[in-house]
Amino acid sequence: MPKISHKGQHMPASPIRKLTPYADMAKIAGKKVYHLNIGQPDIETPEGMLNAVKNIDFKVWAYTASEGTVAYRKKLTGYYNKLGYNITPENIIVTTGGSEAITISMMACLDPGDEVIIPEPFYANYNGFACQSDIVVKPILSYIENGFALPPIAEFEKLITSKTKAIIICSPNNPTGYLYSKEELEALKALVLKYDLYLLSDEAYREFCYDGRTFISPMHLDGLDENVIVLDTVSKRYSACGARLGCLITKNKSVLATALKFAQARLSPGMVEQIAGEAAVDTPDEYFKAVNKEYTNRRNTLVNALNKMEGVFCPNPGGAFYVVAQLPIDNADKFCQWMLESFSYDNQTVMMAPATGFYSTPGAGLNEVRLAYVLNRDDIEEAMVCLEEGLKVYPGRVVSAVELKPKGKRKVQIQ
Amino acid sequence: MPKISHKGQHMPASPIRKLTPYADMAKIAGKKVYHLNIGQPDIETPEGMLNAVKNIDFKVWAYTASEGTVAYRKKLTGYYNKLGYNITPENIIVTTGGSEAITISMMACLDPGDEVIIPEPFYANYNGFACQSDIVVKPILSYIENGFALPPIAEFEKLITSKTKAIIICSPNNPTGYLYSKEELEALKALVLKYDLYLLSDEAYREFCYDGRTFISPMHLDGLDENVIVLDTVSKRYSACGARLGCLITKNKSVLATALKFAQARLSPGMVEQIAGEAAVDTPDEYFKAVNKEYTNRRNTLVNALNKMEGVFCPNPGGAFYVVAQLPIDNADKFCQWMLESFSYDNQTVMMAPATGFYSTPGAGLNEVRLAYVLNRDDIEEAMVCLEEGLKVYPGRVVSAVELKPKGKRKVQIQ
Repeated sequence: MPKISHKGQHMPASPIRKLTPYADMAKIAGKKVYHLNIGQPDIETPEGMLNAVKNIDFKVWAYTASEGTVAYRKKLTGYYNKLGYNITPENIIVTTGGSEAITISMMACLDPGDEVIIPEPFYANYNGFACQSDIVVKPILSYIENGFALPPIAEFEKLITSKTKAIIICSPNNPTGYLYSKEELEALKALVLKYDLYLLSDEAYREFCYDGRTFISPMHLDGLDENVIVLDTVSKRYSACGARLGCLITKNKSVLATALKFAQARLSPGMVEQIAGEAAVDTPDEYFKAVNKEYTNRRNTLVNALNKMEGVFCPNPGGAFYVVAQLPIDNADKFCQWMLESFSYDNQTVMMAPATGFYSTPGAGLNEVRLAYVLNRDDIEEAMVCLEEGLKVYPGRVVSAVELKPKGKRKVQIQ
Repeated sequence: MPKISHKGQHMPASPIRKLTPYADMAKIAGKKVYHLNIGQPDIETPEGMLNAVKNIDFKVWAYTASEGTVAYRKKLTGYYNKLGYNITPENIIVTTGGSEAITISMMACLDPGDEVIIPEPFYANYNGFACQSDIVVKPILSYIENGFALPPIAEFEKLITSKTKAIIICSPNNPTGYLYSKEELEALKALVLKYDLYLLSDEAYREFCYDGRTFISPMHLDGLDENVIVLDTVSKRYSACGARLGCLITKNKSVLATALKFAQARLSPGMVEQIAGEAAVDTPDEYFKAVNKEYTNRRNTLVNALNKMEGVFCPNPGGAFYVVAQLPIDNADKFCQWMLESFSYDNQTVMMAPATGFYSTPGAGLNEVRLAYVLNRDDIEEAMVCLEEGLKVYPGRVVSAVELKPKGKRKVQIQ
């Protein structure tokens, strides 16, 4: 029997999805499972976007240009220029989801053995994408105590070698919800210019900033045109995860020309999705206002409930729709599996993503979980009752190990 | 300015699309351009498939399972089992186009530096996908004189090293249209088993076999369960290239488990496409009969016209919708560009794909072009008049260099 590649063996399983068999078994056993494990919102996709799909009027479902249709790229340009990105359609390559924007950017900028620095915890699939291209991830710890703010630049500099080619940031962050400030981005800018690095900016959650906060992109900073690549997707912005429609944006012409070659190899992004994407850009502001209000309320519900639990700490993040919470447990992987396999309260349980999968440093995040507030508030409240009851009886409960040192952005005190 | 990766520099541009700027200029100059360069059929997508898109009734455009929906994989299983593949839905991983079936299979089976043997000319993007994963392509020449039949197995064996992990075949073939016989596949089977190799079978053109010929897949052969991975797509089968919906099929459980990890990293194939794909499986037989008849006629028109031209030779292939023709020219890249840039007949010209891009051996295919018969017969006839007139006056015409040695499958004599 021929052998699997080493790459295939080392490829990590998705920490978000790997517990799915246990959730399935829990459901078969008749339990209701609250899915707080995955960033699949229950928010409705804008009607205009779905209507565009329903109203397709072509006869041949054809390839589009590899870089995306002119019509969609023009429309997107309008969206980004409203944000102040100052681009033309030529700065955009349409991709199959944000995932492909990441993989193409990695391949265009990094060779096997090259290094990318990523503040952790980070979006788990960066690990997988790096593994695909034999790129080395150099994680840099951020801390729950200050809400996962940008680590000191000096810590980045300690990691930089001749192999360092890029830094990836994600703001608002998945999994922490942390939103980088102008000052943090300016600090990154100086670093990136000093060492001639690419700055890959994952902006999947751009539209999800709360409490009046403003989103700032590296695209808003002067002097970074050759360094910044924005990685984007419609998945979260329009609750259209299944459309698999994203893009990469850069003003670096060499990156664009190179990315286009990778885009040409896979021929084309989806045609129907690009038609829907055009319509999506016209989504009225009221949609976003309503969604923002809903998520703000959900976040408040979730964070308040978590911080009321004994031994639990959860920062109150500025954006996205995730939180990372610290729990009085020995091992998040074990705990999340136990919740599905061995626990129920009122015949209900909760599926969460162990935070370990969002760290690259071994042992980090062992007592943390990621929770996506993608369910309505009633369901979140029910889920939190389950979690609290579960924590009370979990055999691996280790209250004494939770020595929380409040500092920085931490707002909610644990009794 | 940060540097592009070596990989990005070495990534080949698409030979099918790289002449597009010249075609655009020809159009701006008012010329009509017949596109025989790209496998984008003008055949209409089945109505049932398009209606499935128009009739979507969900509210949230959500991720699906990374391996594809259960409903679509069940439906596909029915399609493949009618062909005698004897699979279950668990043998299928739904991919974003055939392209992703290829890249995921390559990553699951081959590491950087590993070698894959591919009879050439071959689908040009195999080069690009191999480059993405730092895999080495070992081409093995097939010859226009016998219609591009499978090269002798002894020639394969000469190429096999400790790094050889796989063979890729494509039947019916893009670009040659050649359809492998049962005997040829049996010969490959023995080779694959002898050296414990993967056999990647690109079956994008399965439905396109002419003159009563029967398609045979390695899936039809016994004893190859651990070796065969089928790479498939709806692109050509249902003229739905822009749907970006494909799949990989294998009975090798390790490959399935590994491929799933790569599929999980990119989250999900498109949701609407899978709904459309379910409907596509119910496309009535009449559709395929009509399409087959149309392509047969087009092929006959094209091949006859080509072989009537002085110094031109074109085998009459058994499948797909491409031919590779040998022309009395010095350099196919120059000639194809010249046809767009410097030539017109009756204000019309033809865009073809230089065959050089389908070979990996330097210098091979220099006097060959690939023609896709994706236009109606009237247009093909017009295009052939253009080509004939172009050949007459092309400055690089080298009739004397075309020393054709009829043998094997060659049916049409050149005077």
